[in-house]
Amino acid sequence: MGAEQRPPAPEAEQPRSEFYQTLENRWSKGLFVCVGLDSEFAKIPDFLKKGSVVQNIFNFNTRIIDATHDLALAYKPNSAFYEEMGVDGIQALILTADYAKRKYPEIPIILDAKRADIGNTNNGYAKFAFDIVGADAITVHPYLGKEALKPFLNRKDKGVIVLCRTSNPGAGEFQDLIVDDCSYGDTPLFGMVAANVFRDWNEHGNVGLVVGATYPEELEKVRKTVGDMPILIPGVGAQGGDLEKAVRNGKDSNNQGMIINSSRGIIFASGGEDFAAAARRETQKLTNEINTHRLA
Amino acid sequence: MGAEQRPPAPEAEQPRSEFYQTLENRWSKGLFVCVGLDSEFAKIPDFLKKGSVVQNIFNFNTRIIDATHDLALAYKPNSAFYEEMGVDGIQALILTADYAKRKYPEIPIILDAKRADIGNTNNGYAKFAFDIVGADAITVHPYLGKEALKPFLNRKDKGVIVLCRTSNPGAGEFQDLIVDDCSYGDTPLFGMVAANVFRDWNEHGNVGLVVGATYPEELEKVRKTVGDMPILIPGVGAQGGDLEKAVRNGKDSNNQGMIINSSRGIIFASGGEDFAAAARRETQKLTNEINTHRLA
Repeated sequence: MGAEQRPPAPEAEQPRSEFYQTLENRWSKGLFVCVGLDSEFAKIPDFLKKGSVVQNIFNFNTRIIDATHDLALAYKPNSAFYEEMGVDGIQALILTADYAKRKYPEIPIILDAKRADIGNTNNGYAKFAFDIVGADAITVHPYLGKEALKPFLNRKDKGVIVLCRTSNPGAGEFQDLIVDDCSYGDTPLFGMVAANVFRDWNEHGNVGLVVGATYPEELEKVRKTVGDMPILIPGVGAQGGDLEKAVRNGKDSNNQGMIINSSRGIIFASGGEDFAAAARRETQKLTNEINTHRLA
Repeated sequence: MGAEQRPPAPEAEQPRSEFYQTLENRWSKGLFVCVGLDSEFAKIPDFLKKGSVVQNIFNFNTRIIDATHDLALAYKPNSAFYEEMGVDGIQALILTADYAKRKYPEIPIILDAKRADIGNTNNGYAKFAFDIVGADAITVHPYLGKEALKPFLNRKDKGVIVLCRTSNPGAGEFQDLIVDDCSYGDTPLFGMVAANVFRDWNEHGNVGLVVGATYPEELEKVRKTVGDMPILIPGVGAQGGDLEKAVRNGKDSNNQGMIINSSRGIIFASGGEDFAAAARRETQKLTNEINTHRLA
């Protein structure tokens, strides 16, 4: 799927959702780092573990948020790290999002939950993510297609970020399979996901894609397919993605469009009492590096 | 992917996990109905709504379980219907599974959560499903490939049921795309998922697939690919799948291998005080119909 096979642009300019505008407002300030709140309980510094599990996680998260709020493009808690603590974890997730939205309403919260079921059931997941947690966006699997995802896509005020080329080593098992596409030639499955999402899923301007920094060539192909649609780019920290290539290949024609996530590399940069200051330092460092590459 | 393109059987007979043996024990009793505990709070009969939300959901579920335990192959709570009630819903899910496993340890519980993330993160989801909820099996998305799903697949004592051809109207958007497969010809994506899972994912004999009853031809293709691997078949109730075709095309060479789910058609068969008796009646009716078709 080279540039010559790029799908036609939609007739009118794509609409802009509230979620997109929130991102654009942050990008205009030079902010591109999504702070991944993958707050695995076992890794939270011991000195914080005084009260209940809920309090421990909440205190950890809110200190990270307070220390990084002027540098973070977005916060992205991954639901798995809360679910593994059961009801206490879910409670801490809800309280964290509530705290962030009250204190810093200008910063979007992306619930990284990678959900997707049939339509009737997705109503429940949309309610959980958008109404119970109060997130501004959610990540979803593409496998069931657009029709099933309408309960997410129809929430015009919310973002829906679709897995396209994931950052894991075995991502290619299905995502790289070459599929026939009568409209513009053979393409890997992840390219079809990008093309369908761009052509057909984004009626409300509220859709984005996930492409791992660990696959810069695939990222380049997806960017050529989707214009200036937001791309969530995980994998630059502990997973070893090349930041310079990710930025070069991931930025849109306005040198923005990227949500570059780092989780463990920021929130667990120090296990000591300076953990929040260390998180700020790493967020600043990553922001500076991104902006250097972005404007090179 | 006709029978002539069937992938070669693994050299040795596939191993049998504890989860498989539990299913086989129920199948040997003529039990094929998976009771879907999609206990949407708004649909729980009003007369049950006296105490807390947790109590309401727990009372509803446990009365259904007590009324159907000798007829149910398995119980399948769908996580979305609990998550939409927040912390209370998760608590009710955990308590329901605990009740069922203590009282009826012979009946497997399948947590229909449709999870899948990168490996490190899937550890959290596996902990939630298998250790916090205490489920015997979980449903997962295939999109990230086998490598990412190892935290589920490596739990030899637990079942992992992979989405293959889902029951929703728009399932074909990606699942029907024709992909190149050098080892045995062109096949739709769902056929590649079935083939890879059968050939490579089932080292511990603990894997199954989801294929909707709403697509009987696709079900036939998958069954020809996967031998006697368990197939979870949703879509026979409210979604309108043809039961006779589903059984004919879904059964394995021993006339079993099927986990035929009905949710709304059983648990909300009556909104009155007889709701549990009505659930039993519908479970019995569906069991009888399946056995008639199965042995025809």
